[in-house]
Amino acid sequence: MRLRLTAVKQVGFIGLGIMGKPMAMNLIKKGFRLVVVGGRAVESVKEIKGKDVVVVNTPMEVAQRSDIVVTCVPDSKDVEEVYLGRSGLLEGVKPGMTLIDMSTISPHVAQRVSAEVEKKGAKMLDAPVTGGQKGAIEGTLTIMVGGDAEALSKCMGVLQAMGKTIVHVGSSGAGQYTKAANQVIAAVTWQGIAEGMALACKAGVDPDRLLEVLTNGAARCWALEVRMPNVLEGKFEPGFKAKLQYKDLGIALEEGRRLEVPMPAVAMVNEFFKAVVHEGKGEWDVSSLVTFTENLAGTEIRSRKRSD
Amino acid sequence: MRLRLTAVKQVGFIGLGIMGKPMAMNLIKKGFRLVVVGGRAVESVKEIKGKDVVVVNTPMEVAQRSDIVVTCVPDSKDVEEVYLGRSGLLEGVKPGMTLIDMSTISPHVAQRVSAEVEKKGAKMLDAPVTGGQKGAIEGTLTIMVGGDAEALSKCMGVLQAMGKTIVHVGSSGAGQYTKAANQVIAAVTWQGIAEGMALACKAGVDPDRLLEVLTNGAARCWALEVRMPNVLEGKFEPGFKAKLQYKDLGIALEEGRRLEVPMPAVAMVNEFFKAVVHEGKGEWDVSSLVTFTENLAGTEIRSRKRSD
Repeated sequence: MRLRLTAVKQVGFIGLGIMGKPMAMNLIKKGFRLVVVGGRAVESVKEIKGKDVVVVNTPMEVAQRSDIVVTCVPDSKDVEEVYLGRSGLLEGVKPGMTLIDMSTISPHVAQRVSAEVEKKGAKMLDAPVTGGQKGAIEGTLTIMVGGDAEALSKCMGVLQAMGKTIVHVGSSGAGQYTKAANQVIAAVTWQGIAEGMALACKAGVDPDRLLEVLTNGAARCWALEVRMPNVLEGKFEPGFKAKLQYKDLGIALEEGRRLEVPMPAVAMVNEFFKAVVHEGKGEWDVSSLVTFTENLAGTEIRSRKRSD
Repeated sequence: MRLRLTAVKQVGFIGLGIMGKPMAMNLIKKGFRLVVVGGRAVESVKEIKGKDVVVVNTPMEVAQRSDIVVTCVPDSKDVEEVYLGRSGLLEGVKPGMTLIDMSTISPHVAQRVSAEVEKKGAKMLDAPVTGGQKGAIEGTLTIMVGGDAEALSKCMGVLQAMGKTIVHVGSSGAGQYTKAANQVIAAVTWQGIAEGMALACKAGVDPDRLLEVLTNGAARCWALEVRMPNVLEGKFEPGFKAKLQYKDLGIALEEGRRLEVPMPAVAMVNEFFKAVVHEGKGEWDVSSLVTFTENLAGTEIRSRKRSD
């Protein structure tokens, strides 16, 4: 049993986007043979190591030719289409196989699709990630997994090729709820940063020295340490797009409504992201949220040393 | 000139509370002779090293017998009383000396008191801290300093005895504005943590594993890393008291009003802290803010492994 599992080499991969592509690359580097659906995005994978990539025409064929399938697509409706749509994964699923959805989607949808997969005698894990494109490229993602523990143990080699910290957080949907919590905290923190720094900067505090203090005390966080230096330089290239953060807050609010968890800060920050997206900054980094408060306050949180 | 400055040994210290006492201890350890006002709190300092502490009756006498004076009191009104009140520091101030206020108070009040000190030919620095009681005990505080650069350079030895990261953030008041930004970000982050974790926990995610994921991704922050393990255990001993965070948000909102910086998240979280204080949790740690959302949502963010 153990021998057979460690011999798994053929891994299906659907969703070769900004995150999926480098994750697929890491699987190839670790010796997995990928099965992918033909299309434009596939070319970039073939460039790297053509002989280890099998190209087929539909998700159904991906499932038929793989032992494990990884999906990494933008939204709930994409997952529903890839899994449940015509010539979708479900039509090719074999009993005993495991499907790993690494997209960030509605926990509710993840649970519903997982139930459909189980009817075929297979398992589905919801396994969204955090760590950004950098983590995807370096294979250092944090992966939060909901679903069957045995199915997870069969997939550990695949997940370890893409991530560093892999945590089994609970049953089906738990991975997505964990991701929702992560997104909520990150988004609300950005609003706190915007308001606090706008106040100090409008009062005349040096923004660079302000950031130095903030990253050395009880306000210290990932956003200040990793992204805020870019904001001080007026750089808002993603990173993680504001429109995706807005999508994720929508998921959190929908679940909050369903489970009756009042989330006033999320509701408010969601409205501010709506304004940011409406202003045409949806493709900017999530840190562009600070420009909303800057505009309200008539001040800028920018380095005095920047060159432009 | 330089020799005379490094020879400064007599340092006044007013405010031997939860933060001030360990800070004073560190000054004694580094060889400074302290001048303090007699009273109950002084006993604890005398216990440690009686011979290096001179006890006088009023702040005025503290100023008369010191080259540098450190103050660390609870609120704006305490600073006004210690500096400007009858037999206050101002009555004993000598030209050329420096007064360092390490309290967290209104930037506006800091600037006004500093102006009064300058009329006497002396300087005042606003130098609030972050790092908590632990940082105060270990001498690893981050100190954010507003005021005259030359006065700061004269006091570096004193500040380095109490803190590790000392940043000159701007002119008079800039230290307090920086502290306000720090408090705003920390407080708003706590609300994000409360809402995100309440959602995931009510959905059935394991709280310990949830925290493991959150401290390994883009939501990573001081509060999750340092304080949240206590919350999971149901422990709310301060740390930093909720009533002081509530006081600090009041300062931030007052300054936001004065400078016309809209801070909707701060305004909202301020109301929630008002509720927490009203519930009698003002003496609890600032993390008790999460109990407000827990009560609203009818769920608890508690470890399944805890013993009680």
